[in-house]
Amino acid sequence: MSELIRVAVDAMGGDNAPGEVIKGTVEALNASQEIEVFLVGDQAAIEPFLSKYEYDKARLTIVHASEVISNNEPPAIAIKKKKDSSIVVAQRMVKEGKADAFVSAGCTGAVLVGGHLIVGRIKGIERPALAPLIPTLNGFSLLIDCGANVDAKPSNLVQFARMGSIYMENIMGRKNPKVAIVNIGAEEEKGNALVKAAYPLLKECKDINFVGNVEARDIPNGDVDVVVCEAFVGNVILKMYEGVANALIGKIKETMMSSLKTKIGALLIKDELKNTLKAFDTSDYGGAPMLGLKGLVVKTHGSSKSKEIKQSILQCIAFKQQDIPGKIAAAITVKDEPASEEA
Amino acid sequence: MSELIRVAVDAMGGDNAPGEVIKGTVEALNASQEIEVFLVGDQAAIEPFLSKYEYDKARLTIVHASEVISNNEPPAIAIKKKKDSSIVVAQRMVKEGKADAFVSAGCTGAVLVGGHLIVGRIKGIERPALAPLIPTLNGFSLLIDCGANVDAKPSNLVQFARMGSIYMENIMGRKNPKVAIVNIGAEEEKGNALVKAAYPLLKECKDINFVGNVEARDIPNGDVDVVVCEAFVGNVILKMYEGVANALIGKIKETMMSSLKTKIGALLIKDELKNTLKAFDTSDYGGAPMLGLKGLVVKTHGSSKSKEIKQSILQCIAFKQQDIPGKIAAAITVKDEPASEEA
Repeated sequence: MSELIRVAVDAMGGDNAPGEVIKGTVEALNASQEIEVFLVGDQAAIEPFLSKYEYDKARLTIVHASEVISNNEPPAIAIKKKKDSSIVVAQRMVKEGKADAFVSAGCTGAVLVGGHLIVGRIKGIERPALAPLIPTLNGFSLLIDCGANVDAKPSNLVQFARMGSIYMENIMGRKNPKVAIVNIGAEEEKGNALVKAAYPLLKECKDINFVGNVEARDIPNGDVDVVVCEAFVGNVILKMYEGVANALIGKIKETMMSSLKTKIGALLIKDELKNTLKAFDTSDYGGAPMLGLKGLVVKTHGSSKSKEIKQSILQCIAFKQQDIPGKIAAAITVKDEPASEEA
Repeated sequence: MSELIRVAVDAMGGDNAPGEVIKGTVEALNASQEIEVFLVGDQAAIEPFLSKYEYDKARLTIVHASEVISNNEPPAIAIKKKKDSSIVVAQRMVKEGKADAFVSAGCTGAVLVGGHLIVGRIKGIERPALAPLIPTLNGFSLLIDCGANVDAKPSNLVQFARMGSIYMENIMGRKNPKVAIVNIGAEEEKGNALVKAAYPLLKECKDINFVGNVEARDIPNGDVDVVVCEAFVGNVILKMYEGVANALIGKIKETMMSSLKTKIGALLIKDELKNTLKAFDTSDYGGAPMLGLKGLVVKTHGSSKSKEIKQSILQCIAFKQQDIPGKIAAAITVKDEPASEEA
């Protein structure tokens, strides 16, 4: 067996920390012999949970961190001030090569700012991007960017398209993934200033399978594999998914409970329906990778249970084995700086 | 009875024109004694349909227009070239005071461009806005702007907020409507450059009930009455609504047909469920008014059937009786240009 993939896990992050994080970590450890994990957080809080489980002790280490960054503090300030927080300590491990990846269900802003400031960008990457998988009728697509940095430049979008394409091809096994840019119409000349400027640049990229515009209406159909947009729009797309699905599902449940007749009907379809609705749950697709960093940073939903934590940790194996940062670096270097690099 | 509300209807616009448009027009005419309608379009195409119905002939006139603007032509060019198209002829009637309102299920771009160029803006309005009603758990909210002009300025958003507030209060009867701006977080300091600049301006408006940011996730809950955003984001919100709801409903239907057991269950709940899902159909809320114009322009879905056409025509009554353009003009004049206008 090759060397272990070392994953630093934010034991203190998320609504269900540390209990569910620790449970998910142990589950990941028991599911794969290829990983070693570091549980980063308050040792005294972690130990009682950990003592409940059976696992390979040689592949789990607690790394004490005395502070926690909450969702309520300004991320940039928190990252600078709380040097001994689980997020800062774990990301420093990635930076220093002591870990290959960092998984957190904690404050998104702090994870993103930390990724930027501590782990650091790949040379040539102007802006890292947060890229969650979103459910579609075909399975899922990658939505890039949903990060905290809005007001992107056209060249940022081109890098998002390349990084997303590499991820979908190498990690998700989507061959020659279709890449599209979110727009308000199907025609090339539509859009705001950003999209109009990015479109011809994307069209010129020979290393991606750019198929043009995608309207928001068609995203849930899964016609394209990589959905490119700037982070404000990405955020709206992701949260509309969540909001519309929740509202609709809530209404359907209400309807089913409205009379004896509907209750009997509901009983007959509820198991099947549950599976259908589950497929449309955006929280069920593991963590969102932050692409463009020197190491792997995975952000999972704040409401993650052990299952999502486990998935996010296991996701790191392919990321490391496929050397995604290396592939991104190569794509950016070759395509964006041919003169300086090939000289 | 006071004078009739005169509505010019685009007989040639939409996927189901002229049949459904004419049917809806007759239905509106029979439903209200307060309106007079002009069916604008190809007389030879209109007459055979019209002859099928009973209606008050004194209140319906065919206005012949020999051309039709299709969805496939560039709107600005079509409006300039096709002077005898139903959209241009009807909007000219509004401009010249021969009609109070224009209703069309035709090409959105052409209707918007025509509204701008032919009907014309209210003095002081920087940019008219298209403002559809969207379904929520509470009923509906107004989403402003979903028009064709993207890359708005902060001052545009302030005008959208005022116009939307006036519409919801006076037409929809929502008392002191809650106005919010779409953002990627609940905190005031979040957002892109546009939202950050608009927020303090909205906070200063004493004539609207500004409640701060709304995240896309919460829009379907109906927490706010007027959802303010620039048109690119508005378009994404509207189309995500449609896309997610369609995908989810499609999946649910598939699930219900998956076995004998689920088919029986489906039979027991289908009538109730149909009503529930109908409440989430964005096309079911009549037409979207284009606010900020000197007259009323209502754009209904391209797929409109007679029911939506009828609703859109009847909607014009309140708009005219409440003098929405007058109220908008007053709000803009008083609030935005106090020095020059009050001198």
